[in-house]
Amino acid sequence: MTSEIVRIIVGNIIHCSKQYEINTIEKGFIMVLGNKILAVDNELALEEVKSRLNLTDHETEKIVLKESQILIPGLIDTHIHAPQYPNCGLGYDKPLLEWLDIYTYKLEKRYRNQEFAKKVFNAVVRKTLDHGTTTACYFASLFENSSIALVDAAIKHGQRAFVGKINMTTLAPDDYIETPSESIKTTKKFIEDVKAKKNDLVQPIITPRFALSVDMDLMKELGKIAKEQDLHIQTHICENLDEIRLVKEKYNLLYAKVYDEANLLTSKTVLAHGIYLTEDELKLLAQRGTSVSHCPESNTCLKSGLCDVKKLIAAGVKVGLGTDVSGGPSPSIVSAMKAALDTSVHISFNKENYTPMTYADVFYLATLGGAEALALEDKTGNFEAGKDFDALIIDMDIENSSVDYLLGCKPDEILQKFIYFGDDRNVLNVFVAGKRVK
Amino acid sequence: MTSEIVRIIVGNIIHCSKQYEINTIEKGFIMVLGNKILAVDNELALEEVKSRLNLTDHETEKIVLKESQILIPGLIDTHIHAPQYPNCGLGYDKPLLEWLDIYTYKLEKRYRNQEFAKKVFNAVVRKTLDHGTTTACYFASLFENSSIALVDAAIKHGQRAFVGKINMTTLAPDDYIETPSESIKTTKKFIEDVKAKKNDLVQPIITPRFALSVDMDLMKELGKIAKEQDLHIQTHICENLDEIRLVKEKYNLLYAKVYDEANLLTSKTVLAHGIYLTEDELKLLAQRGTSVSHCPESNTCLKSGLCDVKKLIAAGVKVGLGTDVSGGPSPSIVSAMKAALDTSVHISFNKENYTPMTYADVFYLATLGGAEALALEDKTGNFEAGKDFDALIIDMDIENSSVDYLLGCKPDEILQKFIYFGDDRNVLNVFVAGKRVK
Ligand SMILES: [Zn+2]
Ligand SMILES: [Zn+2]
Repeated sequence: MTSEIVRIIVGNIIHCSKQYEINTIEKGFIMVLGNKILAVDNELALEEVKSRLNLTDHETEKIVLKESQILIPGLIDTHIHAPQYPNCGLGYDKPLLEWLDIYTYKLEKRYRNQEFAKKVFNAVVRKTLDHGTTTACYFASLFENSSIALVDAAIKHGQRAFVGKINMTTLAPDDYIETPSESIKTTKKFIEDVKAKKNDLVQPIITPRFALSVDMDLMKELGKIAKEQDLHIQTHICENLDEIRLVKEKYNLLYAKVYDEANLLTSKTVLAHGIYLTEDELKLLAQRGTSVSHCPESNTCLKSGLCDVKKLIAAGVKVGLGTDVSGGPSPSIVSAMKAALDTSVHISFNKENYTPMTYADVFYLATLGGAEALALEDKTGNFEAGKDFDALIIDMDIENSSVDYLLGCKPDEILQKFIYFGDDRNVLNVFVAGKRVK
Repeated sequence: MTSEIVRIIVGNIIHCSKQYEINTIEKGFIMVLGNKILAVDNELALEEVKSRLNLTDHETEKIVLKESQILIPGLIDTHIHAPQYPNCGLGYDKPLLEWLDIYTYKLEKRYRNQEFAKKVFNAVVRKTLDHGTTTACYFASLFENSSIALVDAAIKHGQRAFVGKINMTTLAPDDYIETPSESIKTTKKFIEDVKAKKNDLVQPIITPRFALSVDMDLMKELGKIAKEQDLHIQTHICENLDEIRLVKEKYNLLYAKVYDEANLLTSKTVLAHGIYLTEDELKLLAQRGTSVSHCPESNTCLKSGLCDVKKLIAAGVKVGLGTDVSGGPSPSIVSAMKAALDTSVHISFNKENYTPMTYADVFYLATLGGAEALALEDKTGNFEAGKDFDALIIDMDIENSSVDYLLGCKPDEILQKFIYFGDDRNVLNVFVAGKRVK
């Protein structure tokens, strides 16, 4: 038995015990030792559980939640571009190519500068944690050193993260690409450097930008590295119609087949967007266990299209939520939940017999769905004994927050308010792997 | 010449000088005396203007804006239900009638209690001001006394407001309606009581809830009162298809014709929603000078439909933005601007050759458009000499706000960031009629 303090949080707890099943434990408790959840149950069972686990005489720290508070699992951002963070909110009046040139590439080039990289990456990790993102799947930089700066920032602030050095050998400004051999070399170095950190929470992820910024040989090399080292993979797919046309022209294959040919579709692969995936492609993703990161804010701001998440789910594809900063203007998964709801309702206006998602559905996508999308469901996503304790204490009665709390609410109403208008001010505390990081 | 201090704000100024025309004055100034704008110009002209206006020796207070700040006109909420404020964010998973019963009517009844009314109404006025709403057009309560409590709150906190005692004689719970004669009597008393306050900023507004909660005789009486006393009018129109069907059944007229028959369509009338207005109805509204309050967040959350604002504008109908709290979850017009953009983009996905609105368009709707919708364009909505000074200092470089400010931005980029992810924390100062109220 370790001598660590047992942390017990008592109050209203909401999480998804299964896919698309929301579970409210009124007056419950959760017991945490080190990074792990020991038990979750009704408060009435607390003493019995303590004694069963031989913890009666153990030192404990008890947190008792107020009526305006709920405990929920940490939020998971399955797709975020850390270097684009300073551009949040900018340039959505421009056509996509202009947006890329004037804003995105112009900014991303600046990460040759280490000091700039450190400043931005520390800010983005700190801010996403403040918004309740306990796990983030990052596109880092083309530059290996700067990508390591993001790894360091995640470790420093205690966020669970996948960090990917971007591979990009074509279709970008001349002074912002690498050769295929450089790309492989720096990718291998990056993986080694991340592993050398020996941090349980932060892992490297293979990150070809998208099918048009690399070629098949390079993708195959990357697929090989991923397989040999059992790594996660992330990239983009079917974000807009021009892109799909160009991919077809370049590879003469369906978009998903391109990645599959390179062995990039695995059960540890997450693909951003997927708005225009065909039935055949959805079937392929489901077979491979590959997931989609739904980025509703970005899809609207960049005018990409409406992604029908219910169709993806019906096809057996795993789905999580992404902010896609700065395609999306906000680094908050709460904003992504709200946008996913809006998108779903708007889809329902043009489809017969289509029931839009509810707050419970997007809550699943932001928590357990995100964990499944990142193949992390054995570690995080809900409150199951044995999983890591990644959690948020949400409080809708915060002075000087966005909306006043004037009437008592039931736990599920607290969650509704959080999803519909909550922000970082309502995220009172954040725990990652048992450690309080806000 | 008065001895009041002349306030001079120097920095980047953005406003709409005309309909749908955004105007950025880089390094400009605005000069204010009492409640009025004296001059707006380039900073280089400051001394010349001072001397022309005989103000060279006048006592002045100079505010110099930072690079991360802009001065913009105050935001205008053309449709908000003050009593529903405690329900923000609740019940959008319920069908409309259940939402009305379980949440809306149940809460609205409680405003028989004066203390409760004072608590909520002070909170809603304070909070909307904090979000930058310098002018609000309120649905108050069925109860006259409580409606006066909202008038008092607006006066106390210094908000420009229209406040309407609701008329509702049918189609609501038995214990939450009034008889037609009571309705007229309390409305007249309410108008008298508001006028007795002799406050320049707060005016009564005629407020039949909607065509189904009153009958034609009552509406005609209300139309008469509005005409005799030259009052503003507000109500709802064409929010959803069931409602439209029932109005047709009850009156055997097009929805807009019902109000027109009662002389309720004037150039001082604002109608909330208007999603399903026909071409004939739009023509009628344009003829009458009647405006529509576009409430995009509510239209999505209550699953009412997508309102095509560009169609309304093309028909010559004046349009402003509304939060429609708590049909909309947020009391912020910044949220309404973002939602109006999202709605417009989503409409464009299903229409050929349709250019969605930009941040500049929704900025117009939230400022000058709102002023025109409320027939207040001679008083507020932009920075024209002679108008009242209703303004916000926006700062996107606020510590502990929703997103970090990491790179310098041009003034119009500051505005983009504010619209896409800003919140009350970025509203540094609020001025209404020259008085600083935040
Ligand atoms: Zn992306
Ligand atoms: Zn309304």
